Amino acid sequence: MLIVGELINSSRKAVRLAIEGRDSAAIQRLALSQAAAGADYIDINCGTRIDDEEETMQWLVQCIQEVCDAPLCIDSPAAGALAAGLEAAQRSDRPIMLNSITAESGRYAAVLPLVRKYKAKVVALLMDDSGMPETAADRIRIAGKLIGDLIRDGIPPGDIYLDPLVKPISTGNSFGRDVHEAVRYISERYPEVHKICGLSNISFGLPNRKILNQIFMIQAMTAGMDAYILDPLDRTMMGLLYGSRALLGNDPYCAGYLKAHRSGLYA
Amino acid sequence: MLIVGELINSSRKAVRLAIEGRDSAAIQRLALSQAAAGADYIDINCGTRIDDEEETMQWLVQCIQEVCDAPLCIDSPAAGALAAGLEAAQRSDRPIMLNSITAESGRYAAVLPLVRKYKAKVVALLMDDSGMPETAADRIRIAGKLIGDLIRDGIPPGDIYLDPLVKPISTGNSFGRDVHEAVRYISERYPEVHKICGLSNISFGLPNRKILNQIFMIQAMTAGMDAYILDPLDRTMMGLLYGSRALLGNDPYCAGYLKAHRSGLYA
Repeated sequence: MLIVGELINSSRKAVRLAIEGRDSAAIQRLALSQAAAGADYIDINCGTRIDDEEETMQWLVQCIQEVCDAPLCIDSPAAGALAAGLEAAQRSDRPIMLNSITAESGRYAAVLPLVRKYKAKVVALLMDDSGMPETAADRIRIAGKLIGDLIRDGIPPGDIYLDPLVKPISTGNSFGRDVHEAVRYISERYPEVHKICGLSNISFGLPNRKILNQIFMIQAMTAGMDAYILDPLDRTMMGLLYGSRALLGNDPYCAGYLKAHRSGLYA
Repeated sequence: MLIVGELINSSRKAVRLAIEGRDSAAIQRLALSQAAAGADYIDINCGTRIDDEEETMQWLVQCIQEVCDAPLCIDSPAAGALAAGLEAAQRSDRPIMLNSITAESGRYAAVLPLVRKYKAKVVALLMDDSGMPETAADRIRIAGKLIGDLIRDGIPPGDIYLDPLVKPISTGNSFGRDVHEAVRYISERYPEVHKICGLSNISFGLPNRKILNQIFMIQAMTAGMDAYILDPLDRTMMGLLYGSRALLGNDPYCAGYLKAHRSGLYA
């Protein structure tokens, strides 16, 4: 199970203000608190900074690295911003993740050299030149192509984190089930490849979104999802993660669950 | 999705006292409140009444039927108590369920005639003459035998509710996963047969049992479970049921979920 902390994103107001004021202490607190709460990677996304995304990415990376040892996840659709973040993050003693590559031919060609050069783990979105996937079959088809290409191009299967792209069930009745079916198939067919997703899209447009996001996390893990991009400061969600893992038999003696309980998760 | 309300059970103190005092109003309130909360069947279990189980079963059935139209689930390991309950419940205008038959040769032979005579739906526990199942493979083997025998003996597959027998994960790391694997296999191999379970055994011996039971319900539904024996007055659990069903694509336009939300579930 792998957790990517999602809070350092310039679309969030607190982060936007911290970037504008070059308030490194605020950014550092966000990084440290996520790492302390159990994030394995700290995601950094400043995609709203259209005019200076690369410079901002470098500042964020440097600022976090000054105080926090957690591995980073450099997050942008733009190869230039990924390269800028990777360059600033050059610390050979810790892993790094890129978010993301896709099966779109232009983006694949632009991002692949960075994945190779930095031996990065990579989030691979299941979209290609025909656009966003609609069905489970679309996702399975794109996964096959993307995994084949990445392995052919030298990326170890265990470094690949497929993101099935979650869409709101308010816009399509089967959109949750489609993700589960694709994840289950991919888990059986490619056991070494990881599956990752975010948890907020699924509930868009419905009431009680937090509860739906929690249920979806549990369902996805049951289907084989083994990595999440989420808010690790959400103690209920983190507690549910540990509980789900124990109930799936992936927590010997329920040790992780019991530790989570003692630390006050589910509070 | 089918809900069997579990509250009328003589092992619960309130029910024991109501039986001892022949307090029919208390029993009737329990039946009506479960039906109002969404129970499709009202389970009746007085197995702790060793000396007068049959007589008590008849009294309970009559007392509930006086005020409540919900179908009943007559619950006992003893064919005599099942027969007594069925006789008292003879109302050809509504379905009835028996809980339970097993693949044990003696119990199968004793309960089958009742299932046939009353055209009852039947909970079928996945245990046989060799005892309780240990692994997913045990459950799949017993399910194959039990489904084959029941169909051969004239029971429609859609009237069969297999109970995989849930054991505490505190006593075996894989006991949750084993259930999910068996349920998933059975769902694929026998799509018309239902799968039912209770939700409290899984968490025995661990803290935060309510949360574990909730997670397990969501996991089991993801694997194909479509019926639960539970406390329908637990508003959180009922809310999670509706949310899970919607996220699995079995609730067109999320209508059931939205109705549950408006009625204050998840409160």
